Amino acid sequence: MPELTPALRQRILQAVDAGFAAQTELTAQLVRLPSQRGEEATAQDFMAARYAERGYAVDRWRIDVEAIHHLPGFSPVAVSYDNAYNVVGAHRARSLKGRSLILNGHIDVVPVGPLAQWSRDPYDPAIVDGWMHGRGAGDMKSGLVACLSAMDALAAIGLAPAGDVFLQSVVEEECTGNGALACLARGYRADAAFIPEPLLPMLMRAQVGPMWFQVQVEGDPQHASAAFTGAGANAIQKAIFLIQALDELETRWNANKCDHRHFCDHPHPIRFNLGKIAGGDWPSSVPAWCTFDMRVAVYPGQSLEAARAEIEAFVAQAAARDPFLAKHPPKVIYHGFMAEGYELRNADEAEAALRAAHEQVFGEPLREYATSAATDARFYGLYADTPAIVYGPECRMPHGYDEAVNLESVRKVTQTIALFIAEWCGLEERRA
Amino acid sequence: MPELTPALRQRILQAVDAGFAAQTELTAQLVRLPSQRGEEATAQDFMAARYAERGYAVDRWRIDVEAIHHLPGFSPVAVSYDNAYNVVGAHRARSLKGRSLILNGHIDVVPVGPLAQWSRDPYDPAIVDGWMHGRGAGDMKSGLVACLSAMDALAAIGLAPAGDVFLQSVVEEECTGNGALACLARGYRADAAFIPEPLLPMLMRAQVGPMWFQVQVEGDPQHASAAFTGAGANAIQKAIFLIQALDELETRWNANKCDHRHFCDHPHPIRFNLGKIAGGDWPSSVPAWCTFDMRVAVYPGQSLEAARAEIEAFVAQAAARDPFLAKHPPKVIYHGFMAEGYELRNADEAEAALRAAHEQVFGEPLREYATSAATDARFYGLYADTPAIVYGPECRMPHGYDEAVNLESVRKVTQTIALFIAEWCGLEERRA
Repeated sequence: MPELTPALRQRILQAVDAGFAAQTELTAQLVRLPSQRGEEATAQDFMAARYAERGYAVDRWRIDVEAIHHLPGFSPVAVSYDNAYNVVGAHRARSLKGRSLILNGHIDVVPVGPLAQWSRDPYDPAIVDGWMHGRGAGDMKSGLVACLSAMDALAAIGLAPAGDVFLQSVVEEECTGNGALACLARGYRADAAFIPEPLLPMLMRAQVGPMWFQVQVEGDPQHASAAFTGAGANAIQKAIFLIQALDELETRWNANKCDHRHFCDHPHPIRFNLGKIAGGDWPSSVPAWCTFDMRVAVYPGQSLEAARAEIEAFVAQAAARDPFLAKHPPKVIYHGFMAEGYELRNADEAEAALRAAHEQVFGEPLREYATSAATDARFYGLYADTPAIVYGPECRMPHGYDEAVNLESVRKVTQTIALFIAEWCGLEERRA
Repeated sequence: MPELTPALRQRILQAVDAGFAAQTELTAQLVRLPSQRGEEATAQDFMAARYAERGYAVDRWRIDVEAIHHLPGFSPVAVSYDNAYNVVGAHRARSLKGRSLILNGHIDVVPVGPLAQWSRDPYDPAIVDGWMHGRGAGDMKSGLVACLSAMDALAAIGLAPAGDVFLQSVVEEECTGNGALACLARGYRADAAFIPEPLLPMLMRAQVGPMWFQVQVEGDPQHASAAFTGAGANAIQKAIFLIQALDELETRWNANKCDHRHFCDHPHPIRFNLGKIAGGDWPSSVPAWCTFDMRVAVYPGQSLEAARAEIEAFVAQAAARDPFLAKHPPKVIYHGFMAEGYELRNADEAEAALRAAHEQVFGEPLREYATSAATDARFYGLYADTPAIVYGPECRMPHGYDEAVNLESVRKVTQTIALFIAEWCGLEERRA
């Protein structure tokens, strides 16, 4: 294997820079493809074509719920996977002398919300003051393309990783993680995984595990004018009653934070997000139904089953305090994230490789953090015994209006990834 | 004109009874036709055919917003009227010696809500223990058919009203009243109107005027996990804040009830009904938007403009107490009912005719009431100087699950209507 000398390191960094205009253009092309849930397929076609034209072996398959629903880490789904394709581009090393690596990123983006609130079209990746705008520009198309571009940089100087590298573009990171799980089910394994989520160029030490649940509340519909008699029950008002009761459970779960190392210093690790509500059919009828959706989270090591039981018991107890709800108990259903928390452990060698790469690029030591968000890292760490590094560029307003990614951070993160690949996998001459 | 002797009254009552099986079947056929907003047209076709086969002159026309939007009593609309047809069947009297009459009923029904909660299909008009079930069975297809059947009873004994009678089947009673308004705009006028709304066989003395408004609330979307930092604003939570503030306005409006005669004894005349809510796109994003719909009401004589101004000022004041809403003021829009209240006045002769008819059928004096609901009566009373009698059968669960109408009350109300027509219009021999 070619030795990773200071001179070679410099050549790798320069190769990233030399390719950065093309990388930026590639990122912009990808941002232009809306890839919200259920609509990821064309963006995946784009990724498949990019992998193919570089000579990677392309594996594109539709996710089959039957093939994964029994696996640990599976989240329930309430939508069709008819159009949900994963794409993996594989570099299979000639020498197999180095360590293998999964470079993973997700293609799915969250909904854009009211368009009027965006300064520009969310799928117009204009660059303003060094930031590329667009839904998914940060979370995480820039990271997905950075993996490809880091490999391109090595190729540009005639090199390739000396271990297998699997470039994974997955769906469903924002709601279940079932895309990453399907990669595991398909047999993809490596000595480490790397996920450039836009959570800043720092090492993610720990993450919570999001859970989604929906509470379905009944009402007793009556003519609006009759409701004063005590007849009828307003399902929206009953839902508000439960929503406000749930504040207490959020407080309780955050009060435990120091039982979980890495989260003791976090100001509020477990966020109960009231993300969606819908109820009623007619302004002049007492609403017969209301459903609301919450995203909560658990700490690493915390049992999902126990968390679900606690939520259900809490909702039932709150409902018991209301005469109507006591007789018409709300239902709690699960229709997305059912994710365990994750803590990066037993990853000394991967961390050392990242630390060396980061210091070379940024000229300062690598810092680390724990996050109240989640990534697909948990699948590799928890269910495949594979250390999963999360480290990525700087994003402004992920999930918000005017999402944007800092291109200078993208450039540096790409350099770090390229050096990390070289460190971790070793290098070999590129196949002719 | 044939004299309305006790013997003739008896013949009329018997004729209603003789036709009641056919009337019940006709009502069932109409209930089978779903006629929710935007879907009334086929039920209107049915009515037009029933009027035509009896020899009434049928006028069927599509409501034209341009033709009515400038008229008093118009309510703003947020839907298409492409399929919104009114139908009038006219009996034009040969002698013109009697007083004329509008018999009005609405074809539109409110949404059914979750089907699982109905004991049977809402459009299956089964008869159980003397009650006909079905959405609209009470509100108000039984009344609409009762008008036709009362006329049929007179025809069956060779008689017809000696004044013009306009059988009106109108749309949009449940949301705007623009159907009735369109009848006025088309020129239909009479000496009295009669509306058999299923508010019991009593005389409605006064009704409130419903108003619909929608509050549109913005949020500041962020990743759910970041919301603890104070960044972001949850539009659903902000909407709940405003909803709860509005309780105070409801209390204030009800505290005034004794300023309005007929409502002083009503327990709660002005019902603020939180009828609909929708917000957020994604459980793991802080929601960027939420809208909620309320139905409120004003007293007879109360200015709608002043009521709107009061609502808007109240919402603005509540918003000013929240730092985010203060900078992002919620919008209040109007998308339906903008109805004045109505009080039946200067209607001594029509009341006397109803009283006589009711006493003959029910054997007891006519009672009266004021309602916290509304009917199309306001159009005739307020904008056409026409006394409008509201008097109808007994309905269980209007707007609710398992709506049903009491058939015995339908029979008696039909008898009352037939006698009322005879009293009010006088009678003539039926045209050959």
